[in-house]
Amino acid sequence: MVPLKNRWLTCCLIEYLGNALLIDCGEGTQIALHLSGRKISHIRTLLITHTHADHIAGLPGFLLTLGNTGKTSPLLIAGPKGIRKTVQALLTIAPFLPYPLEVQELEPQDILQRDGMEIRCLALMHSVPCLGYRVTVYRKPVFSPQKAEALQIPRPFYRQLHEGNTVCLPDHRMIAPEQVIEKERPPLSVCYCTDTLPIPAIARFAEGADLMICEGMYGEDDMLDKMEKKGHMLFSDAAALAAQAGVGRLWLTHYSPAMQNPNDYIANAKKFFPNVQAAWDGICLSLPEGKDGG
Amino acid sequence: MVPLKNRWLTCCLIEYLGNALLIDCGEGTQIALHLSGRKISHIRTLLITHTHADHIAGLPGFLLTLGNTGKTSPLLIAGPKGIRKTVQALLTIAPFLPYPLEVQELEPQDILQRDGMEIRCLALMHSVPCLGYRVTVYRKPVFSPQKAEALQIPRPFYRQLHEGNTVCLPDHRMIAPEQVIEKERPPLSVCYCTDTLPIPAIARFAEGADLMICEGMYGEDDMLDKMEKKGHMLFSDAAALAAQAGVGRLWLTHYSPAMQNPNDYIANAKKFFPNVQAAWDGICLSLPEGKDGG
Repeated sequence: MVPLKNRWLTCCLIEYLGNALLIDCGEGTQIALHLSGRKISHIRTLLITHTHADHIAGLPGFLLTLGNTGKTSPLLIAGPKGIRKTVQALLTIAPFLPYPLEVQELEPQDILQRDGMEIRCLALMHSVPCLGYRVTVYRKPVFSPQKAEALQIPRPFYRQLHEGNTVCLPDHRMIAPEQVIEKERPPLSVCYCTDTLPIPAIARFAEGADLMICEGMYGEDDMLDKMEKKGHMLFSDAAALAAQAGVGRLWLTHYSPAMQNPNDYIANAKKFFPNVQAAWDGICLSLPEGKDGG
Repeated sequence: MVPLKNRWLTCCLIEYLGNALLIDCGEGTQIALHLSGRKISHIRTLLITHTHADHIAGLPGFLLTLGNTGKTSPLLIAGPKGIRKTVQALLTIAPFLPYPLEVQELEPQDILQRDGMEIRCLALMHSVPCLGYRVTVYRKPVFSPQKAEALQIPRPFYRQLHEGNTVCLPDHRMIAPEQVIEKERPPLSVCYCTDTLPIPAIARFAEGADLMICEGMYGEDDMLDKMEKKGHMLFSDAAALAAQAGVGRLWLTHYSPAMQNPNDYIANAKKFFPNVQAAWDGICLSLPEGKDGG
């Protein structure tokens, strides 16, 4: 929430099949993206959780740098009520962009479809309107060339079948996609919740997510009173929510600047949820984590 | 002008007798100040050269962090025409500050007096209104205790005499400050010019400055055409101006991101002005540089 030497402000890049979306854009996001070595020109969606400076002050620099990549395709910026006014204000110092900008104010029940990613929102409980996001990709099942060959299906029909369509072969046989499927692949999802009090709705929202990224402002449990006043949560709050949600993995983020080394307090989270990490700048994960070989 | 891994955006801190002013506030300024180890709570003046994002996008984060230091005294933000509107827009994401903010639009002939520092402006030539700044401190002369003792001046009168006042002693003798002065000390000044074409007025404005900080977007002389279109200058332009101005020292800054290692081109500047450095993040200088022992 306050930048330190080796700990910058919030942003999270999600890449899927050659496109990408970014969640939050704190000061220095363009530098963090540069350090990550990731391409930024394929970012087509920017989700903002809320309009506090530590989540959005990097917007003008990010937009200008995105313009310098030669991008001409539109960028969608979506966020809670108030995002339009804030983006308009920040564009005062980025008035000329070589690509169209769309801004969308989201309601908690909205569902966005972007580049094969489904984005759901949750109203979090903070001092200003704030949204949690859950990004899900539904994947095609594993196709079985063996089954297709056994059924003597000509190759040009493989793709349509794999995409879930029933086909009619030249010999007039009807083949349903289920006949050539090896197995289904579960969807993949990442859930991102900051800044917020630890409301029970988060556990339902994050249910079964592969990765839950959640704020943990303080590691020490005795900071509870302070957190409730500020609208934030403790490591133990986040871990308890992750346990309830049954997520695959939990990353803690958005630390207080007073907490120099978040790992000193990780045990307070592990008590509730063992597969937790105190996230650091540049932390990266590829999904799925080998669980379905997909 | 574009942040790189080890090269952030523009800001320059000037400290004098326990107070400070900052020139420009690019994205990441609060982090750069943190890395410098300097106190920021005593910054009472922020001068902005112009409202391009690479010079002002760090403002909301800087203002919020300044608020976290417990500052309650006013901060003056001064800059060229348009600064008020830009600051107002950026305050959208820093709406609550625990100290009063004053914003002043400067005309090129304006002279500000701030905490013993005299600030003069120069209209630079860029794509938007842009000001160069020259910060000067006038110092008291060196007092001679020997001369004062020889004149049998009681000690309680030393301070008034040193401050330039004539005093009347208990024995009715009038003593003028010149009688107890060892030597005058020349003023100290720092001149800061970016972003601009290399206009001749810069040489007059910077005349005799101890330190000239000047943009040098490209090191190679064959980039001249590009610079003229963009409203910037070359290393050799800056060095020629520094030579004309007879400054003590020249720092180049505001490099193109295409110029990975500015030192590769420093010879192009040294041809015109030998005491030049390609400035880097965190470069620091104490004035005077021993020339007058003051």
